[in-house]
Amino acid sequence: MTLRAIALNCSLKRAGGGETSSTDRMIGLIADALRERGVAFDGTIRIVDHDVKPGVTSDEGDGDTWPEIRRRILACDLLIFGTPIWMGQMSSVAKRVCERMDAFLGETDDAGRMPSFGKVALIAVVGNEDGAHGVTAHLGQALVDVGWTLPPSPACYWVGEAMGKTDFQQLDRVPDKVAGTVAMAAASAAHLAGLLKAQPYPGVTADRKA
Amino acid sequence: MTLRAIALNCSLKRAGGGETSSTDRMIGLIADALRERGVAFDGTIRIVDHDVKPGVTSDEGDGDTWPEIRRRILACDLLIFGTPIWMGQMSSVAKRVCERMDAFLGETDDAGRMPSFGKVALIAVVGNEDGAHGVTAHLGQALVDVGWTLPPSPACYWVGEAMGKTDFQQLDRVPDKVAGTVAMAAASAAHLAGLLKAQPYPGVTADRKA
Amino acid sequence: MTLRAIALNCSLKRAGGGETSSTDRMIGLIADALRERGVAFDGTIRIVDHDVKPGVTSDEGDGDTWPEIRRRILACDLLIFGTPIWMGQMSSVAKRVCERMDAFLGETDDAGRMPSFGKVALIAVVGNEDGAHGVTAHLGQALVDVGWTLPPSPACYWVGEAMGKTDFQQLDRVPDKVAGTVAMAAASAAHLAGLLKAQPYPGVTADRKA
Amino acid sequence: MTLRAIALNCSLKRAGGGETSSTDRMIGLIADALRERGVAFDGTIRIVDHDVKPGVTSDEGDGDTWPEIRRRILACDLLIFGTPIWMGQMSSVAKRVCERMDAFLGETDDAGRMPSFGKVALIAVVGNEDGAHGVTAHLGQALVDVGWTLPPSPACYWVGEAMGKTDFQQLDRVPDKVAGTVAMAAASAAHLAGLLKAQPYPGVTADRKA
Repeated sequence: MTLRAIALNCSLKRAGGGETSSTDRMIGLIADALRERGVAFDGTIRIVDHDVKPGVTSDEGDGDTWPEIRRRILACDLLIFGTPIWMGQMSSVAKRVCERMDAFLGETDDAGRMPSFGKVALIAVVGNEDGAHGVTAHLGQALVDVGWTLPPSPACYWVGEAMGKTDFQQLDRVPDKVAGTVAMAAASAAHLAGLLKAQPYPGVTADRKA
Repeated sequence: MTLRAIALNCSLKRAGGGETSSTDRMIGLIADALRERGVAFDGTIRIVDHDVKPGVTSDEGDGDTWPEIRRRILACDLLIFGTPIWMGQMSSVAKRVCERMDAFLGETDDAGRMPSFGKVALIAVVGNEDGAHGVTAHLGQALVDVGWTLPPSPACYWVGEAMGKTDFQQLDRVPDKVAGTVAMAAASAAHLAGLLKAQPYPGVTADRKA
Repeated sequence: MTLRAIALNCSLKRAGGGETSSTDRMIGLIADALRERGVAFDGTIRIVDHDVKPGVTSDEGDGDTWPEIRRRILACDLLIFGTPIWMGQMSSVAKRVCERMDAFLGETDDAGRMPSFGKVALIAVVGNEDGAHGVTAHLGQALVDVGWTLPPSPACYWVGEAMGKTDFQQLDRVPDKVAGTVAMAAASAAHLAGLLKAQPYPGVTADRKA
Repeated sequence: MTLRAIALNCSLKRAGGGETSSTDRMIGLIADALRERGVAFDGTIRIVDHDVKPGVTSDEGDGDTWPEIRRRILACDLLIFGTPIWMGQMSSVAKRVCERMDAFLGETDDAGRMPSFGKVALIAVVGNEDGAHGVTAHLGQALVDVGWTLPPSPACYWVGEAMGKTDFQQLDRVPDKVAGTVAMAAASAAHLAGLLKAQPYPGVTADRKA
């Protein structure tokens, strides 16, 4: 049983513009650490390169590319949700992805389980400065609300000193603390996803509810 | 292998004053649902009745009662963390408990695992009005930061209409949506705690880090 | 000296689709209360009907409609920032507007004042359920970070009971508490905007900094 | 008309223990900048040195020291609210102070004005690492909810690089960006407090409400 992971990069900048992304660097570290744990990596989707429509359903019609992205996410066992920090908060692109996942709440099976049940999320957050804890709080809340499971210390983050201008991708080397956090988060997430894939959440069946 | 759960009630009101607590009612619902899943319940600690000192270590000396509370929490596999909402946020008592758990970060074993690793948390939040999502975000972030695992939809909450005055304990009956949320959260949490107790997180050993 | 106000509706739904918006109802209440205080109302911009590009500059080129919206906002003295609640948080459309205002940080005059200095913001938040305090916290932080001034109790909000489905626009009448909050917020905001228009913030001039 | 300011330091550490506080350093910078603008400074109250009881009234009886602290705060025109960051959030001591101010909501005059109306708050936040934006969001929301007015960029903050250990008080010199933020925040706050003291918020009188 091979586990599979996929990543979302919720940068405001298009990859098509040739701009590299600090968020991609953090995602890359996590993907490498998951591979070391035997997890296959299905690549990174740069959301802003796709036409993800505003809304809270799984298909907003008219050229909406979310249905295909949703299918790819749900084909995997682990999600690396990456976002830059703007104004101390997750990006509007990350918020839009959360809103689209809100539809999971209405897509439960006969035991009340959302399509994300049994899948594990990790959070990749980078910014020039302050905001990683706030992003983790709100992104984490949105993720568990729509059925994902969070391992201990799910957030792999880097920010510079207050009001600084350095990008994560400009650092010559990855700080030891970041590397250590990534290694531990990946180890826990892979373990957890394996357990839940082998022994799924039971949910609550109708007779149980009665 | 019997799982055990314990609850914290972070109300601002002392139980000694004879005041019942809406937070206790929500905790009671979750405890009952866990018992149905075969989990033993070790009772609820009303934090404000104890002398939990401010600080970020596991023992702040001088009559500090946290060491005993900490011992009881870590003797269990599941934690029900209950807090009322004040000003849309968790109580200061809940914040203090989080701060004391911050010490877990420095209490890792040789595989880097905090004492909370493999333990599962549920969140019980009640208020007269608005704030449950905000509390879940910040309490959830604090809990995963210090090593707890969060199942899907870990927050069991009730609040009334905006700027309302009704207490959860004043409701004649528990709303169906609350009951359904509690049943699902308990089912997922008990399942997850059982998996993690049988097959603990691996952590990252020194040779692996190298 | 007549004060002018403008509103943003950050609903996920297009007005063009003929869908009315609960956010519009709250904005309407505030606009009426401001008019009673002698403030002229320049109307509501439904952001999702416009092509506001992702980014953090004041002009992202290529058909970006933000420059014109920005011009209209900065021509006024008061802003009513309206957003629905999704997943306990502000909408992705609201987040995008905040990101575009982030450019104000680099558009200061020779006394260090952003273009929003001396302007006053009010917050209109509605949702089926819980989230108004969390939205107020994060929207308020973003607004003061980019130069707006906040009066006491700037948030006019309504949400229903936990996990409810009622829309604000479905209510037969506006609850008294909402009406009272709106009246007070409008009175304070109009007063504050008038003071600041007559006597602008001094900023810090270079000689003062030295 | 001389304006007066007072500061709260919500550190978890007692000053009596001889421990200096990074929060005090930031408060000191703001107090100096306010003095330059002609504001008298009434000193800093280290909350943890006092017996501020848990609760949401203005007097919790039995040796509660909040009534005297409340009196001193309300005798001033400006408040510097200082808190350290723990786990990316404000301290439990800061939360307790907010809860005690919650009583302002029930202490309105006949125009509906809370005792804090017309007073201006600044926020001082320091930590080893990440959290300042999150603290600003939640502390700011609590402050405006209970009647304080927030100037542009009210938060004066410093944090080090992600997962760092440096204290603000260990820095040889205050970073230019921090000094600039403090100068601007103090200039705006003093100006705003002066305007509001000379021309108070009108509130909403009963006939107006009708």
